[in-house]
Amino acid sequence: MSDTLKQFKDYLHTMRQYDHVLTLLYWDLSTAAPEKGVEARMRAINYFSTEAFRLSTADEYGKMLHELSQPAQFDSLDPAMQLTVKRNLRDYERFKRIPEDFYTAYTEAKTRSERIWEKAKRNSDFSEFSPYLEKVISMTKEYVHYMEPDQDPYEVLLDLYEEGMDSATIDRVFEELKEGLLPLLGKIEAAGRPNLSALEGHYDIAAQKEVQSMLLDYIGFDADAGTTAESEHPFTTDLCIGDVRVTNHYNEDDPISAMFSAIHEGGHAIFGQNIDPAYEDTAVEQVNMMGLHESQSRFFENILGRRRSFWEPIYDKLSSLLPQFKQIPLDTFCRAINDVHPSMIRTEADEVTYCLHIILRYEMEKAIFRDNVPVDDLPALWNDKMEELLGIRPQNDAEGILQDMHWSDGSFGYFPSYLLGSMYDGMFLEALEKELGDVDEILSDGRIRDITAWLNENIHRNGSFYNSSEVLQRVCGQKLTARPLLDYFNKKYAKLYGFDR
Amino acid sequence: MSDTLKQFKDYLHTMRQYDHVLTLLYWDLSTAAPEKGVEARMRAINYFSTEAFRLSTADEYGKMLHELSQPAQFDSLDPAMQLTVKRNLRDYERFKRIPEDFYTAYTEAKTRSERIWEKAKRNSDFSEFSPYLEKVISMTKEYVHYMEPDQDPYEVLLDLYEEGMDSATIDRVFEELKEGLLPLLGKIEAAGRPNLSALEGHYDIAAQKEVQSMLLDYIGFDADAGTTAESEHPFTTDLCIGDVRVTNHYNEDDPISAMFSAIHEGGHAIFGQNIDPAYEDTAVEQVNMMGLHESQSRFFENILGRRRSFWEPIYDKLSSLLPQFKQIPLDTFCRAINDVHPSMIRTEADEVTYCLHIILRYEMEKAIFRDNVPVDDLPALWNDKMEELLGIRPQNDAEGILQDMHWSDGSFGYFPSYLLGSMYDGMFLEALEKELGDVDEILSDGRIRDITAWLNENIHRNGSFYNSSEVLQRVCGQKLTARPLLDYFNKKYAKLYGFDR
Repeated sequence: MSDTLKQFKDYLHTMRQYDHVLTLLYWDLSTAAPEKGVEARMRAINYFSTEAFRLSTADEYGKMLHELSQPAQFDSLDPAMQLTVKRNLRDYERFKRIPEDFYTAYTEAKTRSERIWEKAKRNSDFSEFSPYLEKVISMTKEYVHYMEPDQDPYEVLLDLYEEGMDSATIDRVFEELKEGLLPLLGKIEAAGRPNLSALEGHYDIAAQKEVQSMLLDYIGFDADAGTTAESEHPFTTDLCIGDVRVTNHYNEDDPISAMFSAIHEGGHAIFGQNIDPAYEDTAVEQVNMMGLHESQSRFFENILGRRRSFWEPIYDKLSSLLPQFKQIPLDTFCRAINDVHPSMIRTEADEVTYCLHIILRYEMEKAIFRDNVPVDDLPALWNDKMEELLGIRPQNDAEGILQDMHWSDGSFGYFPSYLLGSMYDGMFLEALEKELGDVDEILSDGRIRDITAWLNENIHRNGSFYNSSEVLQRVCGQKLTARPLLDYFNKKYAKLYGFDR
Repeated sequence: MSDTLKQFKDYLHTMRQYDHVLTLLYWDLSTAAPEKGVEARMRAINYFSTEAFRLSTADEYGKMLHELSQPAQFDSLDPAMQLTVKRNLRDYERFKRIPEDFYTAYTEAKTRSERIWEKAKRNSDFSEFSPYLEKVISMTKEYVHYMEPDQDPYEVLLDLYEEGMDSATIDRVFEELKEGLLPLLGKIEAAGRPNLSALEGHYDIAAQKEVQSMLLDYIGFDADAGTTAESEHPFTTDLCIGDVRVTNHYNEDDPISAMFSAIHEGGHAIFGQNIDPAYEDTAVEQVNMMGLHESQSRFFENILGRRRSFWEPIYDKLSSLLPQFKQIPLDTFCRAINDVHPSMIRTEADEVTYCLHIILRYEMEKAIFRDNVPVDDLPALWNDKMEELLGIRPQNDAEGILQDMHWSDGSFGYFPSYLLGSMYDGMFLEALEKELGDVDEILSDGRIRDITAWLNENIHRNGSFYNSSEVLQRVCGQKLTARPLLDYFNKKYAKLYGFDR
């Protein structure tokens, strides 16, 4: 091993320690830290974030990256290290172009805007948030312009959250999807909504936690390589391959929400837990492709979790933990978890209308970044699009443009990855059934772990070694298309609602 | 403010950030981290410990400390900063005398010895542990010799855990105590043990957690400045004044153990939560006086928590959370929590025999450090002393010398602080009653928070500004004496067991 390579590996290891503590500081902030400790916690986060930023922009680090990029050295590196050098050099150069003062000011502006957004959402008053959003938009444009001065800012943002993705591809597949979804939704709405009163009741939180453990174990979450906690919104956090954590939020009136959050976050966690340990400390361990990550949580949550066959082997166990389920026939439960209907809030939407929530946000982001629509016109634009896509109109900003926190902290370009994940899932489902046979048969047989193992082998173990379009090519043998997802929807809901496909 | 002072304050603030993350890394390791994440966690702990050690021994730091120690600068500092400069300079010079290689080797030896101790305790086999203990003893002697080459090593250790304490004082008060305790114990044993079968049963863990919350709130723990979690052994950890956390360990067969752990750790936490925020980042915020700290946990646990009057205002609430208590008269419960009898395990001992467990350990430590008793002779010496002090003889090493982890990680000199804490408590009780009146009356009235407020005002808010003997002088107007603790014991047990004092 060359001296530079050895030095580089040590450096990566050191950077990893900062990732570890920052991840822990944030995890603890969301799951445990008491109110009066928040200020001290933010000081610690600021301190170690700054140190981490310094490490990732240090001249000595840049020197190593440049040396290792020279053909003589580069060619002798193993593939994971080659990818690490390439990706980290790109990030190093991007960060080096950002003035430190600007970086600090941008971070502060995002933190402030996030806090104001929370308040504005509570008050359902966009005008409170508007000047802060305007500032975050203009600074985000500036930020990506520093990183990639010659590229279109929104393309840079899309690529940040889903490497290799571009708006031409998204335009194509979102259009394909929209065309297929609108007639399907019409048929579903015509069929009418199920009566769900049988599910009403009070569900013990301690029992819901046991259901969560049962579900996590069922789908293949390794309890020796992770843990669970409560937080305001469910999320997954990766400390390292051997420590991937999920949170949940429980509701006494509704056990289903926490059940599906458990399966969703469990899917993310199973990805993180099954990355090949050989990739430790390399860039391959960090899966920054949000669409690919989301495809794994949504595969478990929707493609598997919303099937009757998923519940058949465990419905008795579920009923023993939550006795109310003894009175609810499995078919009634399955109608409840597939109750498709237009609604205002993305995070509460069913798997079909969810797609339209994302298409709306994607169109809004293009309006912001390409058409420079004035910030004060955005709430009306949002409401118009809701009416166009879902046929309903928000009555206030809280159930309209203020519902999501993403824009308050500058995460423009993130939303499309949710829907990309679902489209990947349609494709993965086809490939999986081609190889392993009918998914319903596998699930009814209680062999869900065969599916988890297939995902481990084909997707998880590679971490971010392949980007999403390479994964699709390798696993499905084709480019991104919305067709398999539409096929899945059409087949499933025709059967469930009893109409012709 | 001088430039050096400003620079020094920034430096203290930076060191504080390392304390914060190290505390959090350890807290999370004991309360949440899964098995497969331990190795990565240990790497993070090693990395940040080394960085923290570097900060505390850096030349630039020493230079600041020396400059600020010069009369011209020192005299203009406020008292907390004067104390910080003095204490930190002492520690800086101590650490500077330790060769870095030795420090690393010592840390490794302690970690290894701790792991072997766990195994040896499980197997109840001292011979497995013996060579590692021998190494830790000799390296601890070397360690303190580096720190203070001209002082007796055991005196240095005592001072490390209880600043200003020495073995002459401990000899005097432990002897005083032993002489008073042995006749009392004789009378208690003659009175016979109570019948506690009424308490047998199965106690729901979720309900025990609610009892813990109720008790913490009752004694004055601020839930907005702390949180709770589960761990193998209960402990308290201070992240900062606004974030002090306690753990507990629950047992389905025995709710009393977790109740008293809650009160004990709650006492520690109330100390940490009530340090004057003006001391933030200074040495005053760090209370390294273990005896003084232990006096606060034991004051709540024993002096208050084992009285009938403590439970009178909350016994109905307790019975509503743990319905079995409806069948247990308060008097029966009070006999159970004051069941004094010789037993093998320190952590399970009652408040009276507990003292003798500590005296035993103190005598053992003097045998190790002063008389250089060979390691292989220690188990028999332990057993002989148990027989002498408590009249019972361990049947194996697990219930004898292997029961505590302290020596495995080099914490010699720590044990006496537990008993010093109890003796301080006897003195604090006298002072408190002189000022506020009869404690039983205050408690029966439901005014326990008056007592907490008195402790806040007289002890907690000062952090470590005064050392323990200064605190005794200020609060009780006298030097350390075992007499008040003996008075408390004699009065209490004469009444409870109905014998003459």
